[in-house]
Amino acid sequence: MKFDVKKAVLVEGLTKVSKVIAAKSTLPILQGILMEVTEQEIKLTGSDTNETISHCIPVDGENVKVYETGKTVLQKQVVDIVKKSRKEITFTLDGFTTTIRSGKGEFDLNGLDPEEYPKFPKVDLEKPTLVFNGNQFKDFIKKTAFAASDKDTRPVLKGVFCDIQGDCIKLVATDSHRLSRVTHKTSNSADIQLVVPAKSLENAIKLFDLDYEVEVFADNGQLLAFRNGPTIYLTRLIEGNYPETSRLIPSDFKANMRINRKEFLSGLEQIYDIANASDGNTKGTAKLHVNGEACLSSHQAQTGKGRIDIPYESLEGEDGFTISFAVKYAIDSLKALECEEVDFKYTDSMRPFLLSPSSDTSDLEEVQLILPVRTIES
Amino acid sequence: MKFDVKKAVLVEGLTKVSKVIAAKSTLPILQGILMEVTEQEIKLTGSDTNETISHCIPVDGENVKVYETGKTVLQKQVVDIVKKSRKEITFTLDGFTTTIRSGKGEFDLNGLDPEEYPKFPKVDLEKPTLVFNGNQFKDFIKKTAFAASDKDTRPVLKGVFCDIQGDCIKLVATDSHRLSRVTHKTSNSADIQLVVPAKSLENAIKLFDLDYEVEVFADNGQLLAFRNGPTIYLTRLIEGNYPETSRLIPSDFKANMRINRKEFLSGLEQIYDIANASDGNTKGTAKLHVNGEACLSSHQAQTGKGRIDIPYESLEGEDGFTISFAVKYAIDSLKALECEEVDFKYTDSMRPFLLSPSSDTSDLEEVQLILPVRTIES
Repeated sequence: MKFDVKKAVLVEGLTKVSKVIAAKSTLPILQGILMEVTEQEIKLTGSDTNETISHCIPVDGENVKVYETGKTVLQKQVVDIVKKSRKEITFTLDGFTTTIRSGKGEFDLNGLDPEEYPKFPKVDLEKPTLVFNGNQFKDFIKKTAFAASDKDTRPVLKGVFCDIQGDCIKLVATDSHRLSRVTHKTSNSADIQLVVPAKSLENAIKLFDLDYEVEVFADNGQLLAFRNGPTIYLTRLIEGNYPETSRLIPSDFKANMRINRKEFLSGLEQIYDIANASDGNTKGTAKLHVNGEACLSSHQAQTGKGRIDIPYESLEGEDGFTISFAVKYAIDSLKALECEEVDFKYTDSMRPFLLSPSSDTSDLEEVQLILPVRTIES
Repeated sequence: MKFDVKKAVLVEGLTKVSKVIAAKSTLPILQGILMEVTEQEIKLTGSDTNETISHCIPVDGENVKVYETGKTVLQKQVVDIVKKSRKEITFTLDGFTTTIRSGKGEFDLNGLDPEEYPKFPKVDLEKPTLVFNGNQFKDFIKKTAFAASDKDTRPVLKGVFCDIQGDCIKLVATDSHRLSRVTHKTSNSADIQLVVPAKSLENAIKLFDLDYEVEVFADNGQLLAFRNGPTIYLTRLIEGNYPETSRLIPSDFKANMRINRKEFLSGLEQIYDIANASDGNTKGTAKLHVNGEACLSSHQAQTGKGRIDIPYESLEGEDGFTISFAVKYAIDSLKALECEEVDFKYTDSMRPFLLSPSSDTSDLEEVQLILPVRTIES
């Protein structure tokens, strides 16, 4: 193996694949980066067995010149060495030792046997199951993944449920206290149900270059693959049946309050300082009281109390209700909605309420559901 | 107590004094902020008993209008509440409850009894012992404080020794493996020796507005006070005798290598990735070998080895020596020096070497000393 490479293209690839490399791993070889050099490309791979990232740098004779093909597993120090190199770098492999030369510096890195690097199940990258515009993909994840559970008690709730039937894509996440759902009409067509770790999806959108499309390959029951330009991202799926959630979402309401999203968010963020101050049982809870006007309030015995009026645009139905909820959940939901105005849909102080955009766009429907908190009426 | 205040001036003061407030404190009242309102000023104070910050906002009738004087201790939530307020805020104290009104929000914060707030020893702020230009003060601290010890085994070494004799100010810090010293001729005159916690000095320069002068008040044997515009910073001094260090610094050398500081620094940072890779005994050690040319190298059994040639400007004296040292220490020292070229002054592979600017400015002399590491010659 011998090649010349421009620092910039190599740094990009190494930075991406090193994101999944753990400092400690039960398999020491997974602390390294697999480098495979052919006449077509330099392929870099990093993995923690749950997530695997590959990045290909094409051999174009300008950024990369290959004199001899080969492969090795490089120790993670390669990332910092390359980052601090000069613009032109030469890699040479001799036995298991890779020599990195740049400017007046020369580094001999002990390598590991590439034959010992774990083989991952093959995913067929011929025909994508689904194709998303980069920003659209990011948008769907940002609107749902935050609502997934971060607890191990019900592993399936740590995932985002992707339910694709015909031309309808539905993404759902819930931690059983709140639920986020987006429904989108696509031009593709498929019939697939799978649960993807929410953490992996959040990592994926940080990693991806959103100027490229995101192609999804779902023909393997254990793994899901994403291709984003030169980068391939593999994640294990979560096994188990995702709970039926459609019945949880109420469809008729006693009141619908239309409200400016940013005003509501700003009020919640202010009340959060009081609501979250105590470490008692009612941690993070505020009360919304609607009666001619809307007022958010919170009372914590130790810290004090706060109240803030929230001007609303319109109110249909019942005028005169009170509901308590976790402020953090409402903040998360309103941040995800991103629209100008939202509808606050109320049924009963003991039943979930909804936050949704006042005007759905034709091909995207989104719902944020939050369960109320029972409080002793004061 | 009742006053109107512009958000911007209050946020500045609260942000400064809250820097020393601990989330947990043995004295719960120290988790709060003392607010004293007179007809002249709003004075805010935060403290963790070792460090105390006060900030005064003058009553100018524009940014601040006082209707009623008073004092209270506010819970730390006040900082976030004020940060999220509108531009105009009204504070009203009733009993121990402070009401903060801004826009459509109203917050009642439970307060604590200001009479229970600890009284700190009075420091006379009439006549400063020393006055520094803000940037000069920062410069002196940045060139020395990093070399202080962070271990509790010898508390006095966690401080910076300030030795002022006549018009000569000397600052020294050492962790017994390296030493930094600046000597400065001042226009003031004093005769004081004291040991100031390095951490406090580093906090002070982050806190200070360097457009203002820094006045130092050293008439109290236990406390040192700094005044920087509207901000007063008090820190406890470290008790105990600082070791005599002047004899440690060699004055005659076998070799003096003049070298471009940035080139040397860049070489050290590259070699650091290899030197610091192993967690063995020789952690972080590199070797400088001079013989016609200068070469930095490091060898770690597990990771590999690196070498990098460092072009030097000139070499006086012995040409042919090798010395091993902790790369991190050399990096820290070179960063502190900030000049174009440095002198690497060598005596013996077992004796400390010096790094100093090739040309001292007339009123500032600086020395960075590093002890070599003994290694088995390979």
